[in-house]
Amino acid sequence: MTIATRIMPKTLTTEELRKIHAYWRAANYLSVGQIYLLDNPLLHEPLKLEHIKPRLLGHWGTTPGLNFIYAHFNRVIKARDLNVMYVIGPGHGGPGIVANTYLEGTYSEVYPNISQDTEGMQRLFKQFSFPGGIPSHVAPETPGSIHEGGELGYSLLHAYGAAFDNPDLLVCCVVGDGEAETGALATSWHSNKFLNPARDGAVLPILHLNGYKIANPTVLARIDPEELESLLMGYGYKPYFIEGDDPEILHQQMAATLDLVIDEIRAIQHDARINGCSKRPRHPMIVLKTPKGWTGPKFVDGIPIENTFRAHQVPLTEFASKPEHIKLLEDWMKSYQPEELFDDSGKLLEDLAELAPKGDRRMGANPHANGGLLLKDLKLPNFQDYAVEVPKPGTITAEPTRVMGEFLRDVMKLNLDSRNFRVMSPDENNSNRWNAILEVTNRVSTAEILPTDDHIAVDGRVMEVLSEHMCQGWLEGYLLTGRHGFFSCYEAFIHIIDSMFNQHAKWLKVTHDIPWRRSIASFNYLLTSHVWRQDHNGFSHQDPGFIDHIVNKKASVIRVYLPPDANTLLSVTNHCLRSRNYVNLIIAGKQPELQWLDMDAAIEHCTAGIGIWDWASNDKGSEPDVVMACAGDVPTLETLAAVDFLRQHFPDLKIRVVNVVDLMTLQPSSVNPHGLSDRNFDSIFTRDKPIVFAYHGYPGLIHRLTCHRTNHHNLHVHGYKEEGTTTTAFDMVVLNDLDRFHLAQDVIARLPQLQSIGAHAQQLLRDKLIEHRHYIIKHGEDMPEILNWQWSY
Amino acid sequence: MTIATRIMPKTLTTEELRKIHAYWRAANYLSVGQIYLLDNPLLHEPLKLEHIKPRLLGHWGTTPGLNFIYAHFNRVIKARDLNVMYVIGPGHGGPGIVANTYLEGTYSEVYPNISQDTEGMQRLFKQFSFPGGIPSHVAPETPGSIHEGGELGYSLLHAYGAAFDNPDLLVCCVVGDGEAETGALATSWHSNKFLNPARDGAVLPILHLNGYKIANPTVLARIDPEELESLLMGYGYKPYFIEGDDPEILHQQMAATLDLVIDEIRAIQHDARINGCSKRPRHPMIVLKTPKGWTGPKFVDGIPIENTFRAHQVPLTEFASKPEHIKLLEDWMKSYQPEELFDDSGKLLEDLAELAPKGDRRMGANPHANGGLLLKDLKLPNFQDYAVEVPKPGTITAEPTRVMGEFLRDVMKLNLDSRNFRVMSPDENNSNRWNAILEVTNRVSTAEILPTDDHIAVDGRVMEVLSEHMCQGWLEGYLLTGRHGFFSCYEAFIHIIDSMFNQHAKWLKVTHDIPWRRSIASFNYLLTSHVWRQDHNGFSHQDPGFIDHIVNKKASVIRVYLPPDANTLLSVTNHCLRSRNYVNLIIAGKQPELQWLDMDAAIEHCTAGIGIWDWASNDKGSEPDVVMACAGDVPTLETLAAVDFLRQHFPDLKIRVVNVVDLMTLQPSSVNPHGLSDRNFDSIFTRDKPIVFAYHGYPGLIHRLTCHRTNHHNLHVHGYKEEGTTTTAFDMVVLNDLDRFHLAQDVIARLPQLQSIGAHAQQLLRDKLIEHRHYIIKHGEDMPEILNWQWSY
Repeated sequence: MTIATRIMPKTLTTEELRKIHAYWRAANYLSVGQIYLLDNPLLHEPLKLEHIKPRLLGHWGTTPGLNFIYAHFNRVIKARDLNVMYVIGPGHGGPGIVANTYLEGTYSEVYPNISQDTEGMQRLFKQFSFPGGIPSHVAPETPGSIHEGGELGYSLLHAYGAAFDNPDLLVCCVVGDGEAETGALATSWHSNKFLNPARDGAVLPILHLNGYKIANPTVLARIDPEELESLLMGYGYKPYFIEGDDPEILHQQMAATLDLVIDEIRAIQHDARINGCSKRPRHPMIVLKTPKGWTGPKFVDGIPIENTFRAHQVPLTEFASKPEHIKLLEDWMKSYQPEELFDDSGKLLEDLAELAPKGDRRMGANPHANGGLLLKDLKLPNFQDYAVEVPKPGTITAEPTRVMGEFLRDVMKLNLDSRNFRVMSPDENNSNRWNAILEVTNRVSTAEILPTDDHIAVDGRVMEVLSEHMCQGWLEGYLLTGRHGFFSCYEAFIHIIDSMFNQHAKWLKVTHDIPWRRSIASFNYLLTSHVWRQDHNGFSHQDPGFIDHIVNKKASVIRVYLPPDANTLLSVTNHCLRSRNYVNLIIAGKQPELQWLDMDAAIEHCTAGIGIWDWASNDKGSEPDVVMACAGDVPTLETLAAVDFLRQHFPDLKIRVVNVVDLMTLQPSSVNPHGLSDRNFDSIFTRDKPIVFAYHGYPGLIHRLTCHRTNHHNLHVHGYKEEGTTTTAFDMVVLNDLDRFHLAQDVIARLPQLQSIGAHAQQLLRDKLIEHRHYIIKHGEDMPEILNWQWSY
Repeated sequence: MTIATRIMPKTLTTEELRKIHAYWRAANYLSVGQIYLLDNPLLHEPLKLEHIKPRLLGHWGTTPGLNFIYAHFNRVIKARDLNVMYVIGPGHGGPGIVANTYLEGTYSEVYPNISQDTEGMQRLFKQFSFPGGIPSHVAPETPGSIHEGGELGYSLLHAYGAAFDNPDLLVCCVVGDGEAETGALATSWHSNKFLNPARDGAVLPILHLNGYKIANPTVLARIDPEELESLLMGYGYKPYFIEGDDPEILHQQMAATLDLVIDEIRAIQHDARINGCSKRPRHPMIVLKTPKGWTGPKFVDGIPIENTFRAHQVPLTEFASKPEHIKLLEDWMKSYQPEELFDDSGKLLEDLAELAPKGDRRMGANPHANGGLLLKDLKLPNFQDYAVEVPKPGTITAEPTRVMGEFLRDVMKLNLDSRNFRVMSPDENNSNRWNAILEVTNRVSTAEILPTDDHIAVDGRVMEVLSEHMCQGWLEGYLLTGRHGFFSCYEAFIHIIDSMFNQHAKWLKVTHDIPWRRSIASFNYLLTSHVWRQDHNGFSHQDPGFIDHIVNKKASVIRVYLPPDANTLLSVTNHCLRSRNYVNLIIAGKQPELQWLDMDAAIEHCTAGIGIWDWASNDKGSEPDVVMACAGDVPTLETLAAVDFLRQHFPDLKIRVVNVVDLMTLQPSSVNPHGLSDRNFDSIFTRDKPIVFAYHGYPGLIHRLTCHRTNHHNLHVHGYKEEGTTTTAFDMVVLNDLDRFHLAQDVIARLPQLQSIGAHAQQLLRDKLIEHRHYIIKHGEDMPEILNWQWSY
């Protein structure tokens, strides 16, 4: 291995060089203007304090590099009619991307108020990081972006997600050397083992090595170039290095390198598409090493700025107290020679404007970056065809997620030709019981495949890698570019992507208010291998708190479903695959478990989201003595077993059983459109009777959702209280007081009418708990009466 | 670069080889026994179904490799009197580590019931993954471990955390090729740029390339060996490859390689300690490629097992329905020739037992792995010396976290010689205003340092890298080995480590019940750059939900503090640095803000955790008309400004101001020892008066914490409702109805006595909100009356 060629060519003619440099200067000028100016956009009069924003917010450091890359991509897009998306990892470069989409005309098309003239330019400048304006990062408001720039680390995953199944698309992905230190980014380089050049598009990573973060150098900028090259080759890329600070030389290098790498990408794709993808190719990438804050102030107050960490945010400040800084800013902006770039009306000169591609070829207008434009509905089989026969509630068993897998198998099958559906999992597809999908497609890998491997192929549509970050990021990129998918994950470890979920949910929330952003398919999670069934794993694998995490986000973008059995799971799955612009969270069991509802009942129940189970209740339309509510498969089982016990011992007791599938029904209707009105809530839960609620997760959430309801003071929630280890399934619920015996005890204790007659039953329940403990310690498995219990009413 | 030498030496004599192989077989035998057997531990009688556990849980695949490494480390520890800790990334190898600590005697010392005889061996086998027994992973229960094996990805971070400031310690860290795909692990290789061989110990990563996860091959096992070597060299290591399945050859290779790499490590350390650490050395590491499930069944029912993904968990099952599997298990266990390993009493033969090191040199008994044994209290300056002078509440400003930084500077200074205190931050130390610490130490880096860099040196104690995962993992490893630290982070992005926090909190919870585990220093978080002050960043940087996340964990291990100003922050910081076995979360502001309490008042207030601020209240000991409660710096400011407005306009209105520092005081005392009794809660919040509560985070949490309190139905919480963008500080609170005007409106609306006389004030408040909106859109900053408001009573 040797250091990749450092080329010093003359790809651009003198005139081309002049023009591309001018275009870059225009973008830099507009970037600085956004950060600093309230008015006087073209500096037609001397710059004064009142022209400068009182609060200076934004980031200059990475911007000139992003502008440089944008200008050069414009050239190759035009020259070769390429279909290119631009994913910007250093999201702090917001002003640069806004500047470029403004120069190419996209920005004024979606925001006509920001016109291509002096007045529009003044508005462009003022709105940036200004109240009522636009954020400082790349954001949903930015045309051409699918990538929120606020939280670092996900650019390369979004880029790969966009490239999958888009064979003509080239995704230029700028990776910041700061974000390269994050965990998500560090592992996402390996995405190339999952990209098939025969059917997928290409990702061109550009590592923007500008050396500094807020206050520190970056790790990758301070290792030997040989070591960096070794690292990138180890990740499977062929890196091309471009380094320097002389624009003339760098323009030529960048132009030549882009030509070269695009030729290489095309050759790889051509070969794979003619001969098939037999061996993973080594895709090219670029390392662009330019000074942080390139072309900005070199020194301010005698302190070096350019090419130091001090260029990261706003290199010039304190204009009120240091009037000489106003002059520095004016000089800086004039160094781009705006009079050579814009005409008197403030419009980019025609011979520069023609450097940008036209129409959809503009990176700001690429329809893939507004995925809803390209979104096609999935072809869905009738989910009812996958129904489990339930002749009588609680007598036969099924594995719900396995049944779901059969439905998804045919979703996959029906959409194979459309190439717009993928499922992701961190090495858990089969563990989560979606095995059936592998009957119609394979797991994808373009790394080495051995004969002993199970269902792995270069053209598979099941994406498995032991990284929740990668699954999440790929699927986000895939959905944001107009496709569909599902992510199955162990419940506890979905917290690994809590923060990525946050950003996606925030993105969805903001797009609601952006008219030109079209709806995309919902992000669908199946969480299984859940807290109550951690047979192989134990305490470390027990955390049902992702629900708590996501309900903090806007009610308009999140939904939580806890189907108690296979048929309700099918109904919910069908609903989620049709929905748009949500994050749908489904939590369901994968173990063989009792089934409650036939398909008709399941549809009715899921449509309401919550309901009284008349077949399990004996209040016969009258006011019950107690409401026994449940949400989640295991809590439903334990509730019904408790009801069984209570009905046997207290035949006169009127019990109402309520099951919750859609957790959001518990919220007030004023907060959430799925929420029950207070009247309906009261009619289900009564206004004054004890409610014993068995819940899948942490009890506090149920209180939080219902605390304003009439009967809340009578609500007693059993759920996970962080007690667990490697033990039997039933012992897990016992450890957390969620089992049938504790639930029955609680009901008896809360009903005054049972205080005297209930003593015997209470003793029986205590004995049962002791018997259980002795049994499992001796036998290592649950008592037969637990394992074999069925519903008998 | 060439492939590192593949050595084929004869390091071990024939007798040494025989013995080390026997020791390894003994560990493998005990591992299989734990997974399978209830009884008949030494197979003294023919194996029958009733000897086998009814539920088979655990993981075989990685175990023989872990046992292999353990045996070889025993050899070099003895030969060189090394101080070695063993961090096991593939935590599924739990049975292997338990087996080895049993063989070396540690296990029976801490669990005398598990004695080194047949009876003890039977108990050892039965307890594994059995109700009432031990977890299937490496866990707090495992002697010698600081690393919970359940959630993958953090082993290398824990190893580095352990090695920092332990110059004599060598941390052997086995990295699974599955976990190597995670984000956290992928970036943690770069920890070597932060390890200084002159003052720190060494980490020897051993990448255990056994090829498979649950159902898939691993990424690193399916790239060319040259590419893997390139990757590891790119990460800055010098990899040695050991590959094969012939134990005889591999024993020799492993012995020779260990000798070699330990010599190299010693040479690196010697050089750095004599000549100083001038250039980052290239540390050795090992890639150990052995078959998954090595020495286990090669085929079962005609299907290949060893060296396929099928060897991951339990390779033999279905004993009841397939009696021939019983024979296969017996043959497998007998293949280790237990009769050559254990005497008739079940004790390991003496000549094998002597292969293990003695006393604290045993890896299971290394005191660093039970860090509380080595923990020394920090020397703390008197925090009161850093007090901000507050002659009158609400009239002077300070930056609380900057003041905290001054205190921490002197904590750092006083403990420089002890080398037991570090602070971590993802490139935010100065942004979070801990600049003062850099007066007494530097940021650490052993990568290249340039003259323009700010306070970076090879011996710094401030650890900054743009990875929350690395900060979290390093600090966990540092604390678990008996030292102290603080992690400062932007509030929103702490969610990146939600899942890591979970595992650490679970670890702490479990250790409470393990008598031999000694208390360690608490994990201290400072979250700042919080939701209300995201001036440079906006919506993506706004998420106060980490509080919600952590309060789901056991009350016995977590604490949440929201000090409203600098002096309360000092008091809380001092408390947290002295505490043990908690996770302490502190959220505080970094911007200049009004100060409320002088130091005496701050201490009193923090000691109680919650209190009525008499100086701000006018209920003079009588029952108030309204309670205005607040938690968090910005909510406190807005509440007091609202009180100011209300007292001006309604001088007869009796307002009680309550401030909450310790959020856990709101919980019932039955749930949390910090919780107020109902009586005390009622005396503060009244039993029937409206409470308007201004809270830092999501309002639902306050409801969840207080839903069982008498007056909960009168509680109205204002907090973050997920509305935000890049705007002014005051506009952020306005967007979320948390500002003074909305709070005052709410109070007036809730008091019947103000309905008629309040109309004018309500109109005034509406006008103020409109005025605010107009002002910021025009000027881009808040109105002077907002910026200059002070407390005037």
